[in-house]
Amino acid sequence: MPAYGSVTPDFLSQLEAIAPGRVTAGEEVNPDYARDEMPIYGVHPPEAAVEALSTEEIAAVVKLCYDHNIPVTTRGAGTGLVGGCVPVFGGVLISTARMNQILSYDLENFTVTLQPGVLLQQLAEDAMAHGCLYPPDPGEKLATLGGNVSTNASGMRGVKYGATRDYVKAMTVVLPTGEVTHFGSAVSKTSSGYNLLHLMIGSEGTLGIITELTLKLLPAPGAVVSLVVPFAALAPCIATVPKLRRSGLDPQAIEFFEKEILITSEAYLEKQVFPRVVEGTQVGAYLLITFDGPSMEALEPVIEKAAELLLAEGALDVLVADTPPKLKDAWAARSSFLEGIEEQTKLLDECDVVVPVTRIPEYVLYADDLAKHYDFRLQYFGHAGDGNLHIYACSNDLEREVFLAQVDDFMTKLYAKTMELGGQISGEHGIGRGKIKYLAQAVGETNIALMRGIKEVFDPKGILNPGKIFTLSES
Amino acid sequence: MPAYGSVTPDFLSQLEAIAPGRVTAGEEVNPDYARDEMPIYGVHPPEAAVEALSTEEIAAVVKLCYDHNIPVTTRGAGTGLVGGCVPVFGGVLISTARMNQILSYDLENFTVTLQPGVLLQQLAEDAMAHGCLYPPDPGEKLATLGGNVSTNASGMRGVKYGATRDYVKAMTVVLPTGEVTHFGSAVSKTSSGYNLLHLMIGSEGTLGIITELTLKLLPAPGAVVSLVVPFAALAPCIATVPKLRRSGLDPQAIEFFEKEILITSEAYLEKQVFPRVVEGTQVGAYLLITFDGPSMEALEPVIEKAAELLLAEGALDVLVADTPPKLKDAWAARSSFLEGIEEQTKLLDECDVVVPVTRIPEYVLYADDLAKHYDFRLQYFGHAGDGNLHIYACSNDLEREVFLAQVDDFMTKLYAKTMELGGQISGEHGIGRGKIKYLAQAVGETNIALMRGIKEVFDPKGILNPGKIFTLSES
Repeated sequence: MPAYGSVTPDFLSQLEAIAPGRVTAGEEVNPDYARDEMPIYGVHPPEAAVEALSTEEIAAVVKLCYDHNIPVTTRGAGTGLVGGCVPVFGGVLISTARMNQILSYDLENFTVTLQPGVLLQQLAEDAMAHGCLYPPDPGEKLATLGGNVSTNASGMRGVKYGATRDYVKAMTVVLPTGEVTHFGSAVSKTSSGYNLLHLMIGSEGTLGIITELTLKLLPAPGAVVSLVVPFAALAPCIATVPKLRRSGLDPQAIEFFEKEILITSEAYLEKQVFPRVVEGTQVGAYLLITFDGPSMEALEPVIEKAAELLLAEGALDVLVADTPPKLKDAWAARSSFLEGIEEQTKLLDECDVVVPVTRIPEYVLYADDLAKHYDFRLQYFGHAGDGNLHIYACSNDLEREVFLAQVDDFMTKLYAKTMELGGQISGEHGIGRGKIKYLAQAVGETNIALMRGIKEVFDPKGILNPGKIFTLSES
Repeated sequence: MPAYGSVTPDFLSQLEAIAPGRVTAGEEVNPDYARDEMPIYGVHPPEAAVEALSTEEIAAVVKLCYDHNIPVTTRGAGTGLVGGCVPVFGGVLISTARMNQILSYDLENFTVTLQPGVLLQQLAEDAMAHGCLYPPDPGEKLATLGGNVSTNASGMRGVKYGATRDYVKAMTVVLPTGEVTHFGSAVSKTSSGYNLLHLMIGSEGTLGIITELTLKLLPAPGAVVSLVVPFAALAPCIATVPKLRRSGLDPQAIEFFEKEILITSEAYLEKQVFPRVVEGTQVGAYLLITFDGPSMEALEPVIEKAAELLLAEGALDVLVADTPPKLKDAWAARSSFLEGIEEQTKLLDECDVVVPVTRIPEYVLYADDLAKHYDFRLQYFGHAGDGNLHIYACSNDLEREVFLAQVDDFMTKLYAKTMELGGQISGEHGIGRGKIKYLAQAVGETNIALMRGIKEVFDPKGILNPGKIFTLSES
C-alpha cells in the first residue's frame, strides 16, 4: 500500500478555494460519510469531505489530491452493501449528492443525460413523465445513478431488460490524475478500440470518477401487471422459475421469497398484503412476477397462460395486481426486505451470489443446510429469474467477533459452492471492502493480477478509492 | 516497437512438436493467411502458421513465442475488413479454423458452449435446430464466432437484439504469456471485479486468444416476416427510420440501401427480386425491415401498422416476405452487397461509422456531397435502425497511390463529421490496421494511453497481434 499524504490546513484551504463553503474536515464531517448500509465491513471517516457541484470541481479536487498523494473516495447516496464508498484510508471524500440534475433528454434517440448524483427514483419518475422507461430497477430506489453504474446494479427487471451495464451509453470521467475524459457515445453500437466504458461500469469508483452519464431509455410499456403467487413450500416455488423463463411469456421480473422474510417486512411496514394461508394450506414461499406489454388487452392472454402454468406447477393461488394501488401494495413488502431485516437485526452480513437459474433450488437447500451449523439465522430472497440470491446472516445474540468468525466460515463455504455451480461472487452489489478475499479465491491470482495492472494504468499512485475489490500488493 | 525474434529451424521443430503435421512455414504457408477481405490495409505473410486444435496447443504455442519474443496473430475465417488478422510483423499465425466444434447446449439456461472457429452460419442453423435463436446476425455468415466476439460484430438484428457483446457469457482465454484463464460465467449478471470479459470483447485479438466461448441464446421466435419497402428517393426513406423505431413495433432489423448498390448485388447474384419501378415511379432507395413474434397471427397487426406508417411516410409499396423462400430471396441481395462490390471493383476502402439514428440523413447527404470532390465513386448501405453505415469508396481507374491519398483525405473529413455528430469510428468491423489514425483522432491521446497501458498489462512483450488498434509508442 502506498504511503499517503495527510490533509493539512494548507491543503484544506486549497480545497476550500476549489469548492467554497462546501468543504468540511475532522469532526465537522457528516458521520454518515464513514459508512454505507453494511457497517460490518468497517467504519472509517474521511479527513475531509467536499460537496462537489461540477466535473471541473471534481477534476480540480482530484488533481490536488494527486499532487499531494492523498486518497480520494467518491460517494453517491451511501446505499451500498459492500463498504464500497467507505474511505478506508481517510483522505478526501467527494460527495456527488448535489450533482443531481437531469440535464437533457433526446426523445428521438431515446437517451437521457444526467449528473451522477441523480437518484434512481428521481430518474424513474422523470423518465416516465417523458413517456420513457429506464429499465434497471434495483431494490434501493434512493441510490444514485453514479453508484448504480459503478456497481452494475440490476435488480428486479433484469430478467427481461438486463443490468445497468446495458443502459450506459457514455460517461464523462475524471481520472485519478485529475484529467477529464469521455468514454462511449450516444449511439447504438461500437467496435472502436478497447471498451473503456464497459471497464468503468462496475469498477466501484476505483478507476475514475463518473461526473456525467448518458443512459439509454425505452418507450414506456402501455401496461404492467404483477402476480402474487403463494406456494406451500420453497421447493415447488423455485422449481417453477426455469419453466416460467422457458415459457416464452417474457416476464419483466420473477422474485422469490420465503414467508419468514415477508413477515419481517410486513411487520416493518405495518401492513399485510400477501396471504399467509390459502384454503387452509399454510403458505411457505412466494413468487412475485411482473409482465409488461403494449396494452392491458395484449397482456390478458399472457396472464392467463402464466396462471395456468403456475397452478399446474403447484401454486396455491394467483393474485393479480393490475392497478397502480395494487401494484404498489404488492411491491411495497418486497422493496422493504432489507429495511425490515436491518430494523430487527444487530449483526448483519450478506451475500449477493448468482447461480444458473436451474441451480437455485440446489443452492438454496445447500445454504439452508449449511446454516444449521452456525448460531446466526438466515433470511434470504432473490431475483429468481436471474439466479441472483441475497442471503442475509442475522444475529441479535452473538458476540461480534464470534459472529464474524462464523459468518466468514459460512461465506467461504457458500462461495465455494457458488463457484462449483458456475456462479459469480456478486450479481449487483460489487466487491467493495467486504468481498475482497472471496473474489480472489473465485477468479484466481491471474485475473486479480490483470485487475491490479489495469488499476495501476489508470491510477499510478493508487489514490482512488484504495482498499477495494482487491488488495494492491500480493501480501 | 519491440525488436522481435525470428522463426528459426529450431523454433519450427518445437512448434511441430506441439502441433504435429499442422505447422507450415515460409512458402508452404497458405497465401490467404497474409490478408483479410480488405487487402488495401496491407498484405503480410506470417513466417509460420499453426492449425490449432485445442486450448492446450494454443497455450503451448503462445508460451513458446513468448519465450522467443515472436509475434503471434490469431486468425478465424479471415473475413475481417480492417486488416485485423494480418500478421503485420510476421511471426506465427494461429488459425482457429479447425477448432469448429459446438461443444454443448444448456437448453434450460439457454447457453451454448463452442470452440472459436465455429462459423456464424453453423451456429445459427444448429441453434435453430435446438429451438433457439442466436440473435447476432452480421452480414458475413462465414465469419467465426471467435472473430465476431473479437470485433463485437452485430449486423442486421442489432436494432432489437443488440450486438455480439450482449450474448457473450464466458470465455477461455490464452494470455500472451501462455497462461490459460477464464473470464465470465454462464449466469445472467455479475458485479465481481473489473469486467475482463467485456474488455476482451472487441479487443481484436490483441489481449488474449479466445479458445472457448459460452454464448447466450434466446427461444426461437415463432414467426418472422420481412418487408421490402421501395421509396422514390433516399431522403424520405431514411427519414422514416426514426419514426419506425419510435412506433413501438419493435422491428428486428431495419436496413437501407440505394438502388445502385442493389443493382450491383443483383447483377452478382444474377437474380432480380426488388422492384426498380413502382407504378411508373423510379425507385431510388429501399428499406428492408424484419419483424419477429410468437406467431404469424400475433405479427399480423404489427405488419398492418407498419405498412400504414410506411405508406404514410412516402413508401411506394410494401411487399411482404412471409415464407422461407420469400425471406431468403429478400435477404439474398442484401447479404451479397460486399461480394457484389468486390467483384466489380479493383480498389476498395470502406468505413463503418455509427451516428445517432436521427442524424443518418444529414450524414449521408454530407458523404454524398463530399465524395463529389474525389475521383472514386461511393457505394453505401447500412443498418439504418442502428445508425451504422457502411460506406465504400470504389475505383477501377485510379492509380493506387492517388486512390489512397484521396481516400485518406475523404475519410479524415468523414470521421471528423462522425465525431461532430457524436458518433463512433467503427460500429462492428473494428479498428485493426486500417483505422488506427482515425481512432486516435477520435478518442484522443488520454484514452489511447489508457488502451496502451492495458495492452502492456496483458502483453508485456507486445507479441500478440502487434500493429493493431493503436501504435505502441507515441511516435
